[in-house]
Amino acid sequence: MTGPLRLPESIRLREVGLRDGLQIEQPIPTEAKLELLDALVATGVRRIEATAFVSPRAVPALADAAEVAARLSQYPDIEFSALVANPRGAHRAIDAGITTVEYVVSASDGHSTANAGRTTAEALEQCAEVSSVVHRAGGTCEVIVAVAWDDPFDGPTPPDNVVALARRAVDLGADRLCLGDTIGTTTPMRMAQLVTAVREACSGVQVGLHLHDTRGAGLATALAAMQIGVLDLDASIGGLGGCPFAPGASGNIATEELAYLCRDCRVDTGLDMERLVAAAALAQQLVGRPLESGVLRAGDRALVAPDRPVPAA
Amino acid sequence: MTGPLRLPESIRLREVGLRDGLQIEQPIPTEAKLELLDALVATGVRRIEATAFVSPRAVPALADAAEVAARLSQYPDIEFSALVANPRGAHRAIDAGITTVEYVVSASDGHSTANAGRTTAEALEQCAEVSSVVHRAGGTCEVIVAVAWDDPFDGPTPPDNVVALARRAVDLGADRLCLGDTIGTTTPMRMAQLVTAVREACSGVQVGLHLHDTRGAGLATALAAMQIGVLDLDASIGGLGGCPFAPGASGNIATEELAYLCRDCRVDTGLDMERLVAAAALAQQLVGRPLESGVLRAGDRALVAPDRPVPAA
Repeated sequence: MTGPLRLPESIRLREVGLRDGLQIEQPIPTEAKLELLDALVATGVRRIEATAFVSPRAVPALADAAEVAARLSQYPDIEFSALVANPRGAHRAIDAGITTVEYVVSASDGHSTANAGRTTAEALEQCAEVSSVVHRAGGTCEVIVAVAWDDPFDGPTPPDNVVALARRAVDLGADRLCLGDTIGTTTPMRMAQLVTAVREACSGVQVGLHLHDTRGAGLATALAAMQIGVLDLDASIGGLGGCPFAPGASGNIATEELAYLCRDCRVDTGLDMERLVAAAALAQQLVGRPLESGVLRAGDRALVAPDRPVPAA
Repeated sequence: MTGPLRLPESIRLREVGLRDGLQIEQPIPTEAKLELLDALVATGVRRIEATAFVSPRAVPALADAAEVAARLSQYPDIEFSALVANPRGAHRAIDAGITTVEYVVSASDGHSTANAGRTTAEALEQCAEVSSVVHRAGGTCEVIVAVAWDDPFDGPTPPDNVVALARRAVDLGADRLCLGDTIGTTTPMRMAQLVTAVREACSGVQVGLHLHDTRGAGLATALAAMQIGVLDLDASIGGLGGCPFAPGASGNIATEELAYLCRDCRVDTGLDMERLVAAAALAQQLVGRPLESGVLRAGDRALVAPDRPVPAA
């Protein structure tokens, strides 16, 4: 921790644009995804959620999961992961060569039923099988707790429920946890309280965050997260994203906005701003609509007066 | 200060939508402004920058400054202020009954020349006269340092220049200071470093912040500001705003987004969320284009599942 705001020296950013970003979009060709993947790899990012092995009927945009996965071996330095919703998805991911798996469990029945056709308890029951499948393949199973703060159908999620769910998931084999602000309602203090409670209940387990920027507080919450030592943050290029089964959800926090903030706060992300903006521009072109990233629209501050160099912080 | 993030119990938010928000828009009728003013007063805000006494040729949208000012006496509980760019503007504000005056000085010559047709040194020279005019009327003179972090023409503003300017402004009669992130490039650490340096040089003088949300970091910077004890924050309803003489500037941080974050962080703003969203919707209607406030678009989280009450924080 350095500086007046006590921030970590570095974070492990996970790029989720190819999965959470594209899942709500009209399907784009696999080759276009791979072009975006190339652009993302060029930014320096080292963790990429590449796709999801879920029902192609429910999420047609990710129906090419296996084809995407087949192309990942050309990037041996990247930790690729895939999201799954049940043991069958875990098997598909493993068969496709992806052994870093995220299993999503909604913390509230309303979203769980809409998103996965089952209750939270039913989803949790399958956690043991999913993690077992993954562990047998030598992989890592992360449980993402969706609607960890608010459920679009059920309203506020009781923090105790999230803590109990997280603890149970670890007991059932989860190696890592991630708390998802699926509809973009959380704020720094609510985030800090829940993360602190989950950490206390799951001592020694890495707890990451998956934030959306629906109400403007995404980066503020990310800042507060870094201040309490959260080093695992999801973000999506261009701020792509949302959730097809969560009314009111908008994009993830934008990778280039988080990287912009981190650079000037001396928090190392390993990312290159210029290449991030290029990748975000490509993402925008591929989805064919304006993305909401401020850094994409306004550019890095290095471009404000381009003949003048930007000094460190 | 309370909680794991050490935030203040309350802040003094200044609503600047009627000035910074409307100055770049096509002029709207005075009666429409007063309708927006009514809606803003209803939110509970207690500090409102009502207008600017500047050249009506340069800023036609605020040509009705005196007419707006004439209507403010019906709200005796609100601290109304006006921005001025020279002693003549200060006289006009005083004559119109506004004695809380903001005098803007750009910290870099590029923006100063484009914005006010004079260098920073020339603008600073008039500070004594402006504050003297205001003080003779029993008023308060705040100096707003524009482009305190980056100038769209000159690039990064050397922090030492800002500190020297702030110190000199205080010597010339400024009662309060405000640092303006005119083109929305600052981030938490740069903000904290500059505010800390200005405070050290101007001990005992209130230092506020005027933030824009151009690159997504506006609320994160506001959060960090509150953490280092900045209690005076500008915001504009709906995220209205920009600067006609600063290419690339987008809106101020949105009042309802800041209030949303503060409420859930137990920082009292005195503002009512429902009325804020209503005022933002009115602002959007008056300017006739979609505003970028996430809270305006997505609604308060209390509306996510409206039959379920939102618990405290």
